[in-house]
Amino acid sequence: MDSGETTMTFTGKQLTTQLDADGTLTLQLNDKTWDAPKAGQVLIKVEATPINPSDLGLLFASADTDNAEYTPGKIVAKMPDNATRAMKARHGLAMPAGNEAAGIVVAAGEGAEHLLGKRIACVPGTAYATYAVADTQMAFAVDDSVTAEQAASSFVNPMTALGFVETMKMEGFTGIVHAAAASNLGQMLVKICQEDGIPLVNVVRSDAQVKLLKDLGATHVLNMTDADYMPKLIDAIAETKAMIGFDPIGGGTVASQFLTAMEAAASRGAAFSRYGSSEAKKVYIYGALDLGPTILNRAFGLTWDLGGWLLTPFMMKAGPEVVGRMRARVMKDLTTTFASHYKAHVTLEGMLTKEAVSEYNARRTGEKYLVTPQA
Amino acid sequence: MDSGETTMTFTGKQLTTQLDADGTLTLQLNDKTWDAPKAGQVLIKVEATPINPSDLGLLFASADTDNAEYTPGKIVAKMPDNATRAMKARHGLAMPAGNEAAGIVVAAGEGAEHLLGKRIACVPGTAYATYAVADTQMAFAVDDSVTAEQAASSFVNPMTALGFVETMKMEGFTGIVHAAAASNLGQMLVKICQEDGIPLVNVVRSDAQVKLLKDLGATHVLNMTDADYMPKLIDAIAETKAMIGFDPIGGGTVASQFLTAMEAAASRGAAFSRYGSSEAKKVYIYGALDLGPTILNRAFGLTWDLGGWLLTPFMMKAGPEVVGRMRARVMKDLTTTFASHYKAHVTLEGMLTKEAVSEYNARRTGEKYLVTPQA
Repeated sequence: MDSGETTMTFTGKQLTTQLDADGTLTLQLNDKTWDAPKAGQVLIKVEATPINPSDLGLLFASADTDNAEYTPGKIVAKMPDNATRAMKARHGLAMPAGNEAAGIVVAAGEGAEHLLGKRIACVPGTAYATYAVADTQMAFAVDDSVTAEQAASSFVNPMTALGFVETMKMEGFTGIVHAAAASNLGQMLVKICQEDGIPLVNVVRSDAQVKLLKDLGATHVLNMTDADYMPKLIDAIAETKAMIGFDPIGGGTVASQFLTAMEAAASRGAAFSRYGSSEAKKVYIYGALDLGPTILNRAFGLTWDLGGWLLTPFMMKAGPEVVGRMRARVMKDLTTTFASHYKAHVTLEGMLTKEAVSEYNARRTGEKYLVTPQA
Repeated sequence: MDSGETTMTFTGKQLTTQLDADGTLTLQLNDKTWDAPKAGQVLIKVEATPINPSDLGLLFASADTDNAEYTPGKIVAKMPDNATRAMKARHGLAMPAGNEAAGIVVAAGEGAEHLLGKRIACVPGTAYATYAVADTQMAFAVDDSVTAEQAASSFVNPMTALGFVETMKMEGFTGIVHAAAASNLGQMLVKICQEDGIPLVNVVRSDAQVKLLKDLGATHVLNMTDADYMPKLIDAIAETKAMIGFDPIGGGTVASQFLTAMEAAASRGAAFSRYGSSEAKKVYIYGALDLGPTILNRAFGLTWDLGGWLLTPFMMKAGPEVVGRMRARVMKDLTTTFASHYKAHVTLEGMLTKEAVSEYNARRTGEKYLVTPQA
């Protein structure tokens, strides 16, 4: 590592993922040099960075990782043709990855000097690396008592879960339906809604997940693979008035089922109307666990909305006061409500092994990996 | 017809459509007596009422009208099983139909006395009848020079077309994409956008429709059956910045293609972002010309919205000032911008013949029917 007033640079490794026009996907570790950060930015030495579903979309998308070629520090896999075509904009680009991280600030740009030497939680988008640059707007310093592991997932999931509740309030709704609700994020949402007295309908896909959330004290937990899922969903929405939904699955009929059940709950006992109920119903898709198309049966009248939800634009819309309040709450409850759990820790090299990929890329509940580049 | 201060009643015929649980759909004319209207309502003698696509959804939905049994004043048809199940809420109900009409006010409730004897355009929802009750909030008196035929379609299509422009402005967009744009409504929208200098991308499905709209002076008219439809759509949206779309088709990929083209236009020349462009993109579905599911490929990032659009809630949201302005414009340009064209006039009995149904239920551009119950 070189350092100095004017020529301070830092060297290390950075993971990139590159999709070529012929469908070849290459993940590899490259040597990389970081310069001093610009105004409003900091450079962190990355201590810990989780592998979230949103990272997997960039790292692997729908590539065939079972039959990929694994060598130390490198993976070469084949992407299906339709996915290769759909991602034309990234052909030939070696893209860094890793949404969020905890790390120690080793260099600070103008206006960020107060963070120098501190451990921060941040969203560099390039965290699978020895160092990473982060915007201070998407970062906060953590207390001295907070470990890197605790801080690593303290931005995206906690702020997203709190963001759902803020979105619900901003749009005038009073209860939430959540799909894939047994995720780390979903467990946080269960706790937030309990604390705030907000009705929450959790939708999961196995009895084990039902038990997991019931054990956390959740009231409404439905297994979408049950034969009577739809009537139960209608009942739960009728009881809770949960007319806003959040769906990280995206593909298939999850959002359509939410809107259909909201419509059925809203028009329960009402006279038939060819245009459906006039009560607002909204579902946000915030992920793509299923990369297939979204199928809407439109059996929910004409008063409905479906949209995409993403943390950064939400934070810009919500404004600094709301975001500051959310951030303070995350810090306060980081080891309780907002604690994340990891199945395993891996190094940058370790995350490129077949054993690791086969586990974390399966996107199974409770099998999240944490990358620790300095280990 | 009886009349008198306290026992004023009116007698005539009313068409109803009834779907039974076994899939039998029955349309028939019934004898009916109308009482004096309540406060805020008027009773009109129906002079002219169009058969719009939105009416066909209630009248026939997807019933097999080719193989139906036609007797004078009655049709008995078979509804497919899935449609029968989907419309469970209307099983066994003899439902009146006919969204809008022109007629002479023959009785007025409290607060509507000023309309007595006048010709009005209104939205009774029960217009396929000798008489119909209408709310004054969804009605306006027309000038003496306006004929019943001119007034019959002066509410739904004109107010909807103007409502699209108002929605665009309310939501901060500056250009519109419109599907099935050769419809009566679409032709009105072409003229409105010309008058107001609003960029409009018209999407149609035949070269004849392209010519029709070009002859009206439309700039951007795309045939969605052309092999190069998508690249042309992207170009047109990039040029016009038309980031709000309106789709009366509903089923299939129309809305998805709009959002995909908006995303491609918005991110043209920009670096690849795994979350797509941050520019707002919105499509409203306002009809169901295709009753099949809506299919979204979600190749348009996470900043997008899709919703249902319906005239009545829009008018409530827009408020009396905006609605008043829209209404005045319709009256001013009723014989030009907002003129509707009909292929044929039929009586109530005439609309229940096989010949008529086979034409107006095909929902072809330029083959709209007008029902004249008093003829």
